[in-house]
Amino acid sequence: MQLRYAIFGESHGPAIGVVVENLPAGIPVEMDFIRRELNRRRARAGGLSTTRLEGDEPEILSGVFEGKTTGTPLCAIIRNENTRSQDYERTRHLARPSHADYTGYLRYQGFADYRGGGHFSGRLTAPLVFAGALAKLCLARQGVTIGGHILRIGSETDTPFDPVTVSPALLEEVAARDFAVVDPAAGERMKELIQKARMEQTSVGGIIQCAILGMPGGAGAPDQDSVEGVIARHVFGVPAVKGLEFGLGFGFGTAYGHEVNDSMRMENGRVVTDTNHNGGILGGITNGMPILFQAAVKPTPSISRPQQTVDLSTMEDATLEIHGRHDPCILTRATVVLEAAAALAALEVLS
Amino acid sequence: MQLRYAIFGESHGPAIGVVVENLPAGIPVEMDFIRRELNRRRARAGGLSTTRLEGDEPEILSGVFEGKTTGTPLCAIIRNENTRSQDYERTRHLARPSHADYTGYLRYQGFADYRGGGHFSGRLTAPLVFAGALAKLCLARQGVTIGGHILRIGSETDTPFDPVTVSPALLEEVAARDFAVVDPAAGERMKELIQKARMEQTSVGGIIQCAILGMPGGAGAPDQDSVEGVIARHVFGVPAVKGLEFGLGFGFGTAYGHEVNDSMRMENGRVVTDTNHNGGILGGITNGMPILFQAAVKPTPSISRPQQTVDLSTMEDATLEIHGRHDPCILTRATVVLEAAAALAALEVLS
Amino acid sequence: MQLRYAIFGESHGPAIGVVVENLPAGIPVEMDFIRRELNRRRARAGGLSTTRLEGDEPEILSGVFEGKTTGTPLCAIIRNENTRSQDYERTRHLARPSHADYTGYLRYQGFADYRGGGHFSGRLTAPLVFAGALAKLCLARQGVTIGGHILRIGSETDTPFDPVTVSPALLEEVAARDFAVVDPAAGERMKELIQKARMEQTSVGGIIQCAILGMPGGAGAPDQDSVEGVIARHVFGVPAVKGLEFGLGFGFGTAYGHEVNDSMRMENGRVVTDTNHNGGILGGITNGMPILFQAAVKPTPSISRPQQTVDLSTMEDATLEIHGRHDPCILTRATVVLEAAAALAALEVLS
Amino acid sequence: MQLRYAIFGESHGPAIGVVVENLPAGIPVEMDFIRRELNRRRARAGGLSTTRLEGDEPEILSGVFEGKTTGTPLCAIIRNENTRSQDYERTRHLARPSHADYTGYLRYQGFADYRGGGHFSGRLTAPLVFAGALAKLCLARQGVTIGGHILRIGSETDTPFDPVTVSPALLEEVAARDFAVVDPAAGERMKELIQKARMEQTSVGGIIQCAILGMPGGAGAPDQDSVEGVIARHVFGVPAVKGLEFGLGFGFGTAYGHEVNDSMRMENGRVVTDTNHNGGILGGITNGMPILFQAAVKPTPSISRPQQTVDLSTMEDATLEIHGRHDPCILTRATVVLEAAAALAALEVLS
Repeated sequence: MQLRYAIFGESHGPAIGVVVENLPAGIPVEMDFIRRELNRRRARAGGLSTTRLEGDEPEILSGVFEGKTTGTPLCAIIRNENTRSQDYERTRHLARPSHADYTGYLRYQGFADYRGGGHFSGRLTAPLVFAGALAKLCLARQGVTIGGHILRIGSETDTPFDPVTVSPALLEEVAARDFAVVDPAAGERMKELIQKARMEQTSVGGIIQCAILGMPGGAGAPDQDSVEGVIARHVFGVPAVKGLEFGLGFGFGTAYGHEVNDSMRMENGRVVTDTNHNGGILGGITNGMPILFQAAVKPTPSISRPQQTVDLSTMEDATLEIHGRHDPCILTRATVVLEAAAALAALEVLS
Repeated sequence: MQLRYAIFGESHGPAIGVVVENLPAGIPVEMDFIRRELNRRRARAGGLSTTRLEGDEPEILSGVFEGKTTGTPLCAIIRNENTRSQDYERTRHLARPSHADYTGYLRYQGFADYRGGGHFSGRLTAPLVFAGALAKLCLARQGVTIGGHILRIGSETDTPFDPVTVSPALLEEVAARDFAVVDPAAGERMKELIQKARMEQTSVGGIIQCAILGMPGGAGAPDQDSVEGVIARHVFGVPAVKGLEFGLGFGFGTAYGHEVNDSMRMENGRVVTDTNHNGGILGGITNGMPILFQAAVKPTPSISRPQQTVDLSTMEDATLEIHGRHDPCILTRATVVLEAAAALAALEVLS
Repeated sequence: MQLRYAIFGESHGPAIGVVVENLPAGIPVEMDFIRRELNRRRARAGGLSTTRLEGDEPEILSGVFEGKTTGTPLCAIIRNENTRSQDYERTRHLARPSHADYTGYLRYQGFADYRGGGHFSGRLTAPLVFAGALAKLCLARQGVTIGGHILRIGSETDTPFDPVTVSPALLEEVAARDFAVVDPAAGERMKELIQKARMEQTSVGGIIQCAILGMPGGAGAPDQDSVEGVIARHVFGVPAVKGLEFGLGFGFGTAYGHEVNDSMRMENGRVVTDTNHNGGILGGITNGMPILFQAAVKPTPSISRPQQTVDLSTMEDATLEIHGRHDPCILTRATVVLEAAAALAALEVLS
Repeated sequence: MQLRYAIFGESHGPAIGVVVENLPAGIPVEMDFIRRELNRRRARAGGLSTTRLEGDEPEILSGVFEGKTTGTPLCAIIRNENTRSQDYERTRHLARPSHADYTGYLRYQGFADYRGGGHFSGRLTAPLVFAGALAKLCLARQGVTIGGHILRIGSETDTPFDPVTVSPALLEEVAARDFAVVDPAAGERMKELIQKARMEQTSVGGIIQCAILGMPGGAGAPDQDSVEGVIARHVFGVPAVKGLEFGLGFGFGTAYGHEVNDSMRMENGRVVTDTNHNGGILGGITNGMPILFQAAVKPTPSISRPQQTVDLSTMEDATLEIHGRHDPCILTRATVVLEAAAALAALEVLS
């Protein structure tokens, strides 16, 4: 049966969490690994990303027995603590530009929880990472590995994964780093750039690259069930993602067929391609090569400079000043979140 | 109830078609409009794109009564004619690089119809365009208009849609052209580039830009039901699409927050944004501004040059030479196909 | 991926048909078997059931190549011929009591095709039987057999299937009969009863019993994905079905636990139950015993006697007299239809 | 968007609960009403039904803000207390006949939580009742009322709801009673019968009848989306339900058309039927009359008498004796559970 999950919770409600249905039974739920994944989502690298100081310790309520998945729905929650709701009273009617305040207001007719972005808060990516960690544990049993890195922040770029030779060892090496890049020197330049953005009271966007290794060929389907489409449904569910490409992606837009066709040959009894411009997917179906995608992440819209907006209580123009510490770049935390989306998509495709 | 559709058929089978479920009832099925859309998908512009010379006249088998949709499932078919299956016998076991031959072989354990790509053929976009035309007729009733243009072919670019002021009139103007560009001069340069690719026995990729105008604010949802995710599921179902971005998309990767936040204000009693970098969607939900997306389309992999591949019957390396006329650039035909995907997605979001 | 299908068409439109998605690939499409199943749905037993004299020969448009399923969507259609639409003009606004005329009118705001019941016509069970025959061919490969019989018509009852020992041989024997009963003497009594109903210008209801043999244990799930729920979704999609029970079903309502618990034991290395009051399903999951269900089929509402109804064009009371030949009992034709629903449900559960 | 929910938890795990997605926003979450519904599910009527003495107080974790639904996923949990897991050690490998122990074992390859039935426990109906109570609150806003009663326990029957005149007032009256019957005298006879079953160390089954009042005509769809099918998916998700019929249901099996066709007429500008044998649904679509269904509930399989079964650890025959207090009849608690399933189905149909 198809893997399904539902993320629930609001930034300043009692708890956030996730229910995952149709996990395989008998998978050991390695809490150390899950905690590492949740930690990867938190503040790091000299305070470059900041977050509420919370334990974020997940509590598993169901679906695990004697340390293994039961196969019945698994629910885990993370309590919200340290929430100061009054911070939001003064500006509660001022829709933050490029946030979901206004669209959530329309969608839910004014009944959405406005505090800290409510259900639209980046905090909701914690249960997503939890679910992704579970999915990674399930996938590991099938020889599938997921990993990502920060390919770009502003004008600084990391070394891309080699689409043919990218290995589980490299993914693990990057995941273990404080700053998820292939080339640590690029990481240092990115940190400086983020620091500069903070000084200038702005924020900066970037690109995350993800690899899914070990997927068997022949998974997926054409039409609306394409592997690209499944990954996209999960990836575009991550706040701030505004673009997604597979393999060469938008690079195909300036390419010629003879340059980018992936020629095929036998290698150790397997069909392989010499290049992997298609990112491991053809006709919506995996071909056994690494799946590679890049996701564009917009600069966090919370910046300290005054912004023009609308007061939703009076429907009049207004000026908004957001105070307090804000994250000038969410890319550092987004890597593991996009890995989670990729892992859930991969497990769905294989379920 | 949610709009659903299933595309069926193989390139060289008896017929191709589509069943669309949960269309609104009472929509006049304007065959002139539907034929125009199907014609937009066919050969044009001095033979730049070629296709089998077929009537492609759709036959509606159900779901229409006295010229209007009944609301019950609508099936339409297009007969395949002019199919010379023997063309494919000689190379039937040679997987065409960057096509779905090998992945379809794996997915369907060798039982897929290999002739002309079978179900993976670009010909299957005809019923998709048919369904998209139906969706456009339904959307028009709700004041929603869809249109696209060729934003890029190789190194040549068209004038992008202005994300704030793009109008139904402009979309209609572009759709009526032989070559779907905003700037006809750019179109001429693109034609030359395609002609050159043909001469060089290669093919060339590009980018399609689409706009969805008139969508009410508040449609869609966060998480896996985001408007971006729904559009992506439909768009990545279109063969050769390898990338999708909304608004500024990958441009966010080098942007600063203060540059790209869309400030808000009141205009004639409505909330509008001064810019529209987010492409009309925030938190997965529409904000009432134009929805804009770009889709990357890879060069058609069918090129005349010899290519290295694998013989699936012997699992040995082989050389493939594809003969016959082939389309050096499918972008000219892809515009209306991506509009169809967008229209079906928009109708699904509103259903 | 999950089996899906969509039935399309109207009684007096150009054609009726079905698209089936996610069939297994490589299944031989035995047309003789499919035709036999379609014939079982047609007139039989001395004209007890009548139907339009049509070939009902299905045309497969897609999804089959070299006689086997490709795994891509399979579409088959049956052309409507012999349709005299003018028959319906006189009474087109008179909703037939206990038919879907009025509810279809509401649901589709008056745009539904009223001729012969439109999409609600019993004729639409022909493509369902086609799809069911395909499903049976797929299931046979997995050792699963489906069969049914008329358990009751009015006051006459057939011998029920023994819930423990019912065998594929018995199912085949019953299916080969002109009148689908275990006990031919009961069948003769039922025929007399139907004849009597015809004479009295009325119709008569009954009960169909179906068995699914060879299902592996452990299929299905609790909660909304129960095997009972899946079967119910398909079975209640069959017109005129108003009840469904598994195993002892409503008989449990007067039973005591010690009488009806199915005790368990080992037999030839397998877990079996001594009795099978639960009809092969516990907690929504199969236990490896025969799955048995009964479906209640109401008397066809088309009777010749004058009936009180409403004229939907004037919203005034009216009297309706239905002329022409009408089927006094659809049970004879319903057996294979319910088997089809069962087969599609079983294949969905296993997919 | 379609209402969805997922029930999670195991009888002896940390907590049970439910996540409900796509609830309407702005519905006041009346905790008094919700508690009343949860209380209706608990022990009553002189200890006729017994249950663990727990608070069963639900904690809402998300989806509610300032006392109203936000429209984003609502999660509520109920902590498990008072759980003595060691009770289950002795018999953990002995599959209880007619329970889901063996099928759950197969389905989840031995990894399911066996304590107290794990996810299959009747305790999981508490979050279902919670979700049903929410659904009722939403439906009340649309003028839709749900109510049920015990139609039968063993040989004793209650007065059925009149299918035409059944009123919200009657439903409320029955719901307020300790023992959910229309005729209190029938209730007394049922209590005696249950008491007798307890004395005889057995259990007894019955039938619940439910009514859904105020549903607008024209809701639902034919084929697999029929209102009957939607209700069935929810109702068969309730443990112990083995049959479901609408209106006359299995009574149609012995009926003649002229007796049971529901003739139609105008009344106060509305189309009504004189009788309501079809239980408010025709062609899968509501007709505006009361929806009525009956569900058969089997005797709880937990009885004290020794039973033959299988030891799943040795795959050998074994004898099981279940000790401790057990509920001789779950009908008293099942009424509100089936109302919950009906409410969730009705809200899904209207969403």
